[in-house]
Amino acid sequence: MAITFYDLVDREGRRYSPYGWRVRMALAHKGLDATVELCWHSDKKKLAFSGQHLVPVLLDGGKPVSDSWNIACYLDEAYPDRPTLMDGPQGRSFAGFLNSWTDTIIGRRLVRSLYLDILRSLHPQADAREFRRRREERNGATLEALHANRARDFEDINRAMLPLNDLLARQPFVAGATPAYPDYIVFGTLQMPRRLGIEPLGPQQDSVMRWRDAVAKLFNGLGDSTS
Amino acid sequence: MAITFYDLVDREGRRYSPYGWRVRMALAHKGLDATVELCWHSDKKKLAFSGQHLVPVLLDGGKPVSDSWNIACYLDEAYPDRPTLMDGPQGRSFAGFLNSWTDTIIGRRLVRSLYLDILRSLHPQADAREFRRRREERNGATLEALHANRARDFEDINRAMLPLNDLLARQPFVAGATPAYPDYIVFGTLQMPRRLGIEPLGPQQDSVMRWRDAVAKLFNGLGDSTS
Repeated sequence: MAITFYDLVDREGRRYSPYGWRVRMALAHKGLDATVELCWHSDKKKLAFSGQHLVPVLLDGGKPVSDSWNIACYLDEAYPDRPTLMDGPQGRSFAGFLNSWTDTIIGRRLVRSLYLDILRSLHPQADAREFRRRREERNGATLEALHANRARDFEDINRAMLPLNDLLARQPFVAGATPAYPDYIVFGTLQMPRRLGIEPLGPQQDSVMRWRDAVAKLFNGLGDSTS
Repeated sequence: MAITFYDLVDREGRRYSPYGWRVRMALAHKGLDATVELCWHSDKKKLAFSGQHLVPVLLDGGKPVSDSWNIACYLDEAYPDRPTLMDGPQGRSFAGFLNSWTDTIIGRRLVRSLYLDILRSLHPQADAREFRRRREERNGATLEALHANRARDFEDINRAMLPLNDLLARQPFVAGATPAYPDYIVFGTLQMPRRLGIEPLGPQQDSVMRWRDAVAKLFNGLGDSTS
């Protein structure tokens, strides 16, 4: 069956969507090939078939699946003979909790402090004015004001991540001895600043940094690829 | 084999140690009976055999195991034929992450805001002066100052718990469709204010509250027992 994967792209061809990265790693983990269709912010027409306008979207043999969490669950259900992303009910609960935790505690602070960098890197055909308008409305502040608050956001992120650093001081991967979807959730979110050349992690995150390097090297260095 | 379980007690016979509750629920989950030996704060002589001075301690057929996390891992290893507390590597990773998360993000703020209540409830033979001295030293503030900061601590706790509330809006227990050690970790920490008659949870924690009630009813209402 042919899989098409719709992901986000910036003006330099970089893909930095946290959710796109989760799916990208998940596909590699399951050993599934996919044709990639790149979209830019506000390139919505391309995704209309999925009934919504956000990447990532997977089109698997004509069946559209949107939202990275739905896609991960779908891949484990549709391809049970391939390596599992989430192992058993407790593994799925772990991924479910991490998904919420990463998005609300880490990702929200991270993305708002990076909006100005994302704006500068938007694809030339993307609607930069609309990008700014929506995000300033949602956050009740200009992108410049959000950018100015970055140091404090990064401090909060580093404090909140200490339990993850504790876990990774005791075991090589978030999922245990080998990597799985819980790893890709957090890694995906950390790929966003990484692709933009920004380091949010402080020195206290020594185990997280070691782990991030190890995850980037998986699947022939997929996490380090320039596209 | 005879198991003895050393737990903490206050002047009214209440047991409110978060770590004691984790073990109490874990023993019930595995269907293991234990003779309970109650200790009060600074009742260290009783625990000397374990090579340290903190509850909970389990003495199983002459083998001492201390620290709630070690005890949970020990119980799954020593009694593999009984219901598992942590299911597979991802389940164990989940419990390991939640253990750090609950202790550092939730428990630390919770316990410092309750010290004054714990002090008032200490067993008559406990060393109240030593209790106060150690905690004021560790926190660099009087217990009265920590108490005065309670509203802000509770606010931080409620904000940090939102990912857990999200998870519990989607499934009945932290571990999935049925309860397991990930549930007892968080429940144990919430038992401390509950036994002292204090409610740290705000109305936004609707799913956490429903779940807490359900966990309290397990094992013939063990979590609601007055001892």
